[in-house]
Amino acid sequence: MIPQTLKPYVIGLDLGGTNSVFGIVDSRGDIKATTAIKTQAYDNVEDYVKASIEALNIIIDQVGGIENIKAMGIGAPNANYYKGTIEFAPNIAWAHSCCVPLAEMFSKELGVPVAITNDANAAALGEMNYGVARGMKNFIMLTLGTGVGSGIVINGQMVYGCDGFAGELGHVIMRRDNGRSCGCGRTGCLEAYCSATGVARTAREFLSTSDMPSLLREYKPEDITSLEVSIAAGKGDELAKKVYDFTGEMLGEACADFAAFASPEAFVFFGGLTKAGDLIMEPIKKSYDEHVMPVFKGKAQFLISGLDGSSAAVLGASAIGWDIQE
Amino acid sequence: MIPQTLKPYVIGLDLGGTNSVFGIVDSRGDIKATTAIKTQAYDNVEDYVKASIEALNIIIDQVGGIENIKAMGIGAPNANYYKGTIEFAPNIAWAHSCCVPLAEMFSKELGVPVAITNDANAAALGEMNYGVARGMKNFIMLTLGTGVGSGIVINGQMVYGCDGFAGELGHVIMRRDNGRSCGCGRTGCLEAYCSATGVARTAREFLSTSDMPSLLREYKPEDITSLEVSIAAGKGDELAKKVYDFTGEMLGEACADFAAFASPEAFVFFGGLTKAGDLIMEPIKKSYDEHVMPVFKGKAQFLISGLDGSSAAVLGASAIGWDIQE
Repeated sequence: MIPQTLKPYVIGLDLGGTNSVFGIVDSRGDIKATTAIKTQAYDNVEDYVKASIEALNIIIDQVGGIENIKAMGIGAPNANYYKGTIEFAPNIAWAHSCCVPLAEMFSKELGVPVAITNDANAAALGEMNYGVARGMKNFIMLTLGTGVGSGIVINGQMVYGCDGFAGELGHVIMRRDNGRSCGCGRTGCLEAYCSATGVARTAREFLSTSDMPSLLREYKPEDITSLEVSIAAGKGDELAKKVYDFTGEMLGEACADFAAFASPEAFVFFGGLTKAGDLIMEPIKKSYDEHVMPVFKGKAQFLISGLDGSSAAVLGASAIGWDIQE
Repeated sequence: MIPQTLKPYVIGLDLGGTNSVFGIVDSRGDIKATTAIKTQAYDNVEDYVKASIEALNIIIDQVGGIENIKAMGIGAPNANYYKGTIEFAPNIAWAHSCCVPLAEMFSKELGVPVAITNDANAAALGEMNYGVARGMKNFIMLTLGTGVGSGIVINGQMVYGCDGFAGELGHVIMRRDNGRSCGCGRTGCLEAYCSATGVARTAREFLSTSDMPSLLREYKPEDITSLEVSIAAGKGDELAKKVYDFTGEMLGEACADFAAFASPEAFVFFGGLTKAGDLIMEPIKKSYDEHVMPVFKGKAQFLISGLDGSSAAVLGASAIGWDIQE
């Protein structure tokens, strides 16, 4: 048997509401083999795990057997790192209840350690292991997608907090008066402004409160998503650019507060919004410089994820495996 | 020689603008011997350290010699933990420049490891070693004094950030529009509202914008400090109580944001304002419950420091000594 420390691969599982994508990954982030199943084609978690193992066994054989696998990491919604469970996941039929012990179930079948955390924490671990945060001990990952997620690394460790749910930076309050309603039931959250849906809301607001000409006026307001805003901005549309300015300004203000907390060496951004490149990154940096406490000025880098979007989630999940302490 | 691990004491130095107080402390937080010198009676740092060592040698002898001392911790303004320096401390004549290598200077004279950090971080380490945060891995210390300081513990470790200056929670922005000016040069900081001076400002504002009767109207506005507010509140003065409600409400909102970051098991409060007891703690807890993200509700304790105010700073400084990794 190969000594534990020499096992060259980890398994990553990106568990989404539709697909469950598995990858076997080496320490440099090369995906050696991959497979997938439909997340909700199974009536219960036992059948889901059984189908997963059947699919996994084929790719495990391709890399020389389970002896070559150090551990498995799972990135999943509503995941509790400490308990190894998924709790009340609204979009996964077999995980509506508390608590599905998914890590233990996989570990029992595979005979390797298994850990689970949410997608944004997985993304942060992915950047730390394979991406732009390699070698960093203190950084904050912000995922700008349907929501705003975050993964925080301090002293080289993920921040899970007392309950496994720390790092909900999409839900710090940015507008204490007349804030937008947020999916979490409160108002004024960062996510309500700086997620993809927040960007679309901002565009609709700007269209209805100004007479500025804009390509976005060709759409019905309810048909505008962050994609239309992105396309319009790419064509030089001034109103669309203002939407990015507004979004970046708020992200910069939020990061200034995060610096007062953790003084990170970098903020790493991931997700659809980052495709706008400088259109979003420049306003973020400008606003940060304007708002951050003087002692922190000029210390943090602002980076875009170094991982390929299509494989980032599996890489992030696999990185949880490297992070397991034995 | 006694093996390193059996050395029973650490030295703590509470380095203030007026006095430098030294204590020799055991692992339970009992102060075995104490001495002090005037911080600014010396023209330069060399003379300051020389005088310190002369004073220290007497109490070191009282505990059986330097063989019994594991390490020394220093709590000081503008301290950089990573570099072991004091940088641009406005209130200490011999530390106006960058950078006074105080840790190294003491270490060279004493022959034991020496570490330095700011007062609020020292306070957090004090609570973790001897106070109400014993055994906690994730908590946030908030010191409510002339300013609002903070010390953050995550995964059982102090958060120093990339530069040694993390944990400036007094300078997160609580009012983004028309915020009060803050000593840091910005506006709307938590400190501008919830420090002792912030509380006095709130009282003056409430007096000038309402006709509510109040014992505080007996003073000239410029003579009102947090002490007068505290005395009035203690006598049941409604306006003074409203000042505490306002202050507690904002602290609760701030803690709700901090929970989204770190999900701590406790918030620990220290400093003059905590002497108001339930008058300040109840509004904090009520506001926190109203504002925190549902997933974190009911998880964090709200505690008042367990350390005696007069010795807390020396105990905190000494705790830095226990924290040194060898």
